[in-house]
Amino acid sequence: MTATNIPLSAARLWDSLMAMARIGGLPGGGCNRQALTDEDAEGRRQLIAWGEAIGLEVSIDRLGTIALLRPGRDPSRRPVAIGSHLDTVPTGGKFDGPYGVLAGLEILRALHEAGAETEAPILLINWTNEEGARFFPPMAASEVAMGLRAEAALLATPERAGPATFGGELARTGFAGPADPAALQGIDAYFETHIEQGPVLEAMGAPIGIVTHALAAQTLEVAVTGRDGHTGAPMEGRADALAAAAAFILAAERLARESGGEAIASVTRIAITPDARGNIPSGARLVCSLRHRSQPGLEALIAALRGEAAAIAAARPGIGFALEEQWGYPQTDFDPALYGRLEAAAQRRGIASHRMPTAIGHDAIQVARARPAALMFIPCHGGLSHNEAESITPAWAEAGLLVLADAVLETAGLIR
Amino acid sequence: MTATNIPLSAARLWDSLMAMARIGGLPGGGCNRQALTDEDAEGRRQLIAWGEAIGLEVSIDRLGTIALLRPGRDPSRRPVAIGSHLDTVPTGGKFDGPYGVLAGLEILRALHEAGAETEAPILLINWTNEEGARFFPPMAASEVAMGLRAEAALLATPERAGPATFGGELARTGFAGPADPAALQGIDAYFETHIEQGPVLEAMGAPIGIVTHALAAQTLEVAVTGRDGHTGAPMEGRADALAAAAAFILAAERLARESGGEAIASVTRIAITPDARGNIPSGARLVCSLRHRSQPGLEALIAALRGEAAAIAAARPGIGFALEEQWGYPQTDFDPALYGRLEAAAQRRGIASHRMPTAIGHDAIQVARARPAALMFIPCHGGLSHNEAESITPAWAEAGLLVLADAVLETAGLIR
Repeated sequence: MTATNIPLSAARLWDSLMAMARIGGLPGGGCNRQALTDEDAEGRRQLIAWGEAIGLEVSIDRLGTIALLRPGRDPSRRPVAIGSHLDTVPTGGKFDGPYGVLAGLEILRALHEAGAETEAPILLINWTNEEGARFFPPMAASEVAMGLRAEAALLATPERAGPATFGGELARTGFAGPADPAALQGIDAYFETHIEQGPVLEAMGAPIGIVTHALAAQTLEVAVTGRDGHTGAPMEGRADALAAAAAFILAAERLARESGGEAIASVTRIAITPDARGNIPSGARLVCSLRHRSQPGLEALIAALRGEAAAIAAARPGIGFALEEQWGYPQTDFDPALYGRLEAAAQRRGIASHRMPTAIGHDAIQVARARPAALMFIPCHGGLSHNEAESITPAWAEAGLLVLADAVLETAGLIR
Repeated sequence: MTATNIPLSAARLWDSLMAMARIGGLPGGGCNRQALTDEDAEGRRQLIAWGEAIGLEVSIDRLGTIALLRPGRDPSRRPVAIGSHLDTVPTGGKFDGPYGVLAGLEILRALHEAGAETEAPILLINWTNEEGARFFPPMAASEVAMGLRAEAALLATPERAGPATFGGELARTGFAGPADPAALQGIDAYFETHIEQGPVLEAMGAPIGIVTHALAAQTLEVAVTGRDGHTGAPMEGRADALAAAAAFILAAERLARESGGEAIASVTRIAITPDARGNIPSGARLVCSLRHRSQPGLEALIAALRGEAAAIAAARPGIGFALEEQWGYPQTDFDPALYGRLEAAAQRRGIASHRMPTAIGHDAIQVARARPAALMFIPCHGGLSHNEAESITPAWAEAGLLVLADAVLETAGLIR
């Protein structure tokens, strides 16, 4: 009962990836299809056209999430979903997101070509704004769909730089659909496949990563306050906010390094005031991205960082720190039955697989907080992602397609 | 032979300071008269009008520097100059710069009112763009005038943010004059008085600072290169440019703190790439401002910073540092005869004075590199400057006026 019975085409999948990459394509080989831009809308219309060409039923929800349904034979069965995202960061690659959507499309195309049926319906999902590059936070459409975030606040979200809102851009691009996002809670199971965006699988020579759980994640916004002054002032009596911020940046790195691989911490953004050549910095704002293998570990890490900030402030008169937990998700387990099916499929096909956590956010995590879900990785070269040079091999793309198809069709019940 | 013989008015000086502060005045009480803006031009026209009202001869040089001459009795004597600047930083105070110009104006007004003569001419100078806030570097007009910097390059300097050039804005505001900047090398002596922009004099209760020398100064531009990556990537194998920059910021601070008061170091600007929530920083650019009591000490400090950068890079595979010396001036002594005259004048008047170096740049430093020059400070509250809240007391303003007048008139030869 596997995909060996249907004419899956890795070449057709590759052609679709390249066709999608031309939409919002950049001179450096990457893509700019930020959520709900004209380019994203064009990518969405392309997906819908491909789906309609094989008879899929199109549904769009109030958050713009697209669900393409292939009915099953058994009317009592809930859909088995395959999902990912077509939106990209401003200078993204060709594969982050589209690979998972288009691998799902290829399974549905092969079923269509074979005239094959499944017991359960199969639902292909393109989530809106997974990246969060244009509207913060990321993965909010799947989070709302699973009942974990308020819909109204998401619709009102302003874009990062500009006057538009999430809801306004949905309407402008024609993707403010009628469906209730919560309807997606009715799925039986969810499968997502994605490039790893890290170096582990390539280095191991394993084309398949079986994701067992998501690390707990939290983003801190850190405000450092000090005192302005001329750079000619004596070293004594200064309250240099940038120097205090530097001490915090190194403390975060040190805590993560000393965690024995349990924790990850990076300061990824910094802005200082007045940011003037002749002025001692009087303020600094940092964004600090944290991950931990366990939820209590994340909480302990945040507490330790608060302690480091307090110690830095105590050692530097005039310096103050404020740490705010801004956005995150809890440590989340994927469904062992579903990922076991992916693992067994890889084994049957003789494809090496490797169990691993994900430190990177995916819609599958939000789904897994409410429904049985699985997340599978394929390698990417050098771990490079969110980068125009992001790349994969056709062989990796094919391995992922075959394993995904086997597990999805086993779950949905392929009828010979 | 002192200013006790002429009707110096501290109240008139204060009124002129307040009148100048209304030009480009800001709601917070400060001023925005950046060099060669309409506001600066209005301030310049006001100064010229005040000068013409007391018969001063107006000369404007090719860099816009204004020289207002009161002739002396002896045609063989070179002028004794008093100078400072009317331009401000974007959110500057009322006193940084104008105090020195308008104290000089008050001396000339009192001479005029008394019908008094001096042996030597007295020249009041308003240097263009002392601050460097709009056109980098600061103090370039005085540096060119003293033959230490190329005139053509200064005229071509673009503004920091915008399409205008120094030369273009001179022409637009009507201050591209005919005089040769090098003519100012013909002065006999130069006096500048300025607010301290530091806390020392106020804390000591000394209304007069006698500046003996300028610390050697250099600005480094530091480029840190690393490797982009997703914030979910493991801690091992990262090349986080911001963490490396943080180590450099703390190393600079530590070297200065350990110098026993000899050195000052601040990183005042930072910009990182990609500065994105989900990306490990791959690059950082810093501006590092350095001062040292001696020229060899400054050179050793720069060498030590290069060593720190190399050590940080060695400890962090994938990190690179490039340090570029971008702008500075050498350790410069003021003229002991001239500042001795200021010191003696303060003593005669029973005003406490204190010898000190300057760690802050002033046109007087550029003049002192070529001609006998003196720099005198008065206190400002809390050392606060480059800030709308910058403030002084009328008593400090008067003390500076009296001491400056005594020394200038002694140098120029007041005739009873």
